[in-house]
Amino acid sequence: MEDKNLSILKDLKVKSGSHSPSIETILERTSIEIDVDACFLSNPYATDLFMSRFNKEIIDSGRLRNLLEFYPPQNGAVAEYISKFTGVPSENIFVGNGAIEIIQAVLHRFIGKSIALPIPTFSSYYEFVTGGATVEYFQLEKERNYSMDIQKYADFCISKKVSSAVLINPNNPDGGYVSKEEITKFLSRLSHLECIILDESFIHFAYEDINLEEIALGDLVQKYPNLVVIKSMSKDFGVAGLRAGFSIMKKERVAQLLETGFLWNLSGLTAYLFKLLSDESFQREYQIVRKKYIMNTLMFFQELSALKSVHVIPSKANFALVEIKGKSSWDAFAYLLSKGIYVRDCSDKIGLKGSYIRVASRTFEENLRIIEALKSI
Amino acid sequence: MEDKNLSILKDLKVKSGSHSPSIETILERTSIEIDVDACFLSNPYATDLFMSRFNKEIIDSGRLRNLLEFYPPQNGAVAEYISKFTGVPSENIFVGNGAIEIIQAVLHRFIGKSIALPIPTFSSYYEFVTGGATVEYFQLEKERNYSMDIQKYADFCISKKVSSAVLINPNNPDGGYVSKEEITKFLSRLSHLECIILDESFIHFAYEDINLEEIALGDLVQKYPNLVVIKSMSKDFGVAGLRAGFSIMKKERVAQLLETGFLWNLSGLTAYLFKLLSDESFQREYQIVRKKYIMNTLMFFQELSALKSVHVIPSKANFALVEIKGKSSWDAFAYLLSKGIYVRDCSDKIGLKGSYIRVASRTFEENLRIIEALKSI
Repeated sequence: MEDKNLSILKDLKVKSGSHSPSIETILERTSIEIDVDACFLSNPYATDLFMSRFNKEIIDSGRLRNLLEFYPPQNGAVAEYISKFTGVPSENIFVGNGAIEIIQAVLHRFIGKSIALPIPTFSSYYEFVTGGATVEYFQLEKERNYSMDIQKYADFCISKKVSSAVLINPNNPDGGYVSKEEITKFLSRLSHLECIILDESFIHFAYEDINLEEIALGDLVQKYPNLVVIKSMSKDFGVAGLRAGFSIMKKERVAQLLETGFLWNLSGLTAYLFKLLSDESFQREYQIVRKKYIMNTLMFFQELSALKSVHVIPSKANFALVEIKGKSSWDAFAYLLSKGIYVRDCSDKIGLKGSYIRVASRTFEENLRIIEALKSI
Repeated sequence: MEDKNLSILKDLKVKSGSHSPSIETILERTSIEIDVDACFLSNPYATDLFMSRFNKEIIDSGRLRNLLEFYPPQNGAVAEYISKFTGVPSENIFVGNGAIEIIQAVLHRFIGKSIALPIPTFSSYYEFVTGGATVEYFQLEKERNYSMDIQKYADFCISKKVSSAVLINPNNPDGGYVSKEEITKFLSRLSHLECIILDESFIHFAYEDINLEEIALGDLVQKYPNLVVIKSMSKDFGVAGLRAGFSIMKKERVAQLLETGFLWNLSGLTAYLFKLLSDESFQREYQIVRKKYIMNTLMFFQELSALKSVHVIPSKANFALVEIKGKSSWDAFAYLLSKGIYVRDCSDKIGLKGSYIRVASRTFEENLRIIEALKSI
């Protein structure tokens, strides 16, 4: 790896804040060759499936121009598609230009004076807090592999008298998982809060039974009206470039958001994605690639855990947080990049204690390459 | 036209608030056949040009999957493309998921206690005002064909002691135009305001010289730091389904917006559009179709003005506000729809006094059809 590339990359990283620069930007501005993008947390088999339907229904049929040319359907019209596959009434659904737009909207509008946030976490949850609201950080313990002690977290929320709380499940960047049952107890104890954000962006990679059935807690909004469930489409369907996410919340909040904004916030292609998801035959095909990818990921985690040079945090997401022994995370990152593998250097993650990288599970063949490279670190 | 279709359409219109339901939604839910979409304010020749480049560079080259799969470049990276064709430093550029996202952000963050707004106007300018800010309406006079008296408007802003003001140029829905020289005087008189929004979404259809050269006032932000210039891409490039817009404002405001939001707010395809616009060869081709369309529109306006049954408001945009004599605007709308022509019924536009529809200029052939249908109204 040339020093020049690394220094451009460091500069790009600074400009991207606490996120990774896009692959497009890296390839445009450096001569780095990336063969395996293990920074990007998505199911590549689902992208294959989406592309095959997209090519048939949109490209081959000549419908693409319509999707690019005309104004897209409004938020409420797309919410009706989502209602079909979630079973939640459309008036409870707010659709976003990516989950990140919803995170921003909810943090700016509904959290009140203070918000509890477990760390390490996805950085936007503290960066986007505005209007003088304070963040109360709940440190996940290294000794517990950063896994969530949900009762302790509830105690923390109560003792700090926060008005709101965040729970990402499975959590990013460690993949720690809290069961449905435990979450329901948590919601029940904290029903007095203004807002509880449950971010299920990685929930499609989790499971509680041997059939690997999909989990979703959106219907709990009817029982716990302070709950806001946020769902990204970028991870499970591997279409981050489209920008698509949705949330489930009490209908008054949906109405409040739409009253003063979010007009035409979804592209024609995003509207198509949600329409496709409301198609039962697509959902059946998707469940197959979802389970295939989960099995794949399980094997990947087993192989990772067998490596001597690293410590792997148990994960129910599609990525693993990996502690590098005897090396800085930047050095590990640069070494892997020299092998054509792009991972997430976690040195900027607050709440992590040690030298960590985050490695996504990709296709079977790509995962083998990642393992080989990590062996020689 | 079946009554059932019209009643579904009325219902869709109610659900869409003060905007038109999307063509997709109408076609999906009614049996209405639309041949000419003269509600949609775009240059169809520019869509042809965009599609030909898109097909070649993205579809045929196999790059589409990358644009849909991977995370898009961040706001600042796309601002660098825009800097190339505007000549404005990228630190002064904030990129939006459509101009409407920028209108929302600026109204929510920068306008202070009160904002002056000429009416009739684009409804989001009053609907998106939040946080107790008041709107001071400046009524454009029917007797002057709703044209802007810019000195009178400046007097109004001063006497009402507003903190901010909006100027859409050319204005929507009437197409009235204010010259560069007059706008500069206006900015100079109101340099004490917190924020002046200049919405140039339709500026590509205007001209001040015989060569029809493009006008853009973004560089005035350096001299008037309270100025925010907003530009939609949906009209001039005919790609509303993509969602793309940008704004030029003082760099502190760009930084403030990006600090607490707007991460990945642009899709991969939107990033491609802006990159394409930074290509000089594309810009040369675009200027040809831009001027062709302006000439087209001029001829259309001449033919419209010759019709006895309507009164046409002079316009420098790509649409004309048309007053219907002796008929309600809804009846005129329904009659045109029965002929396959979809226009904008303006009965919900505040500040309009009479029975108006807004008719967009389309291709040469489509404009002929619109004229024929209006003749028989």
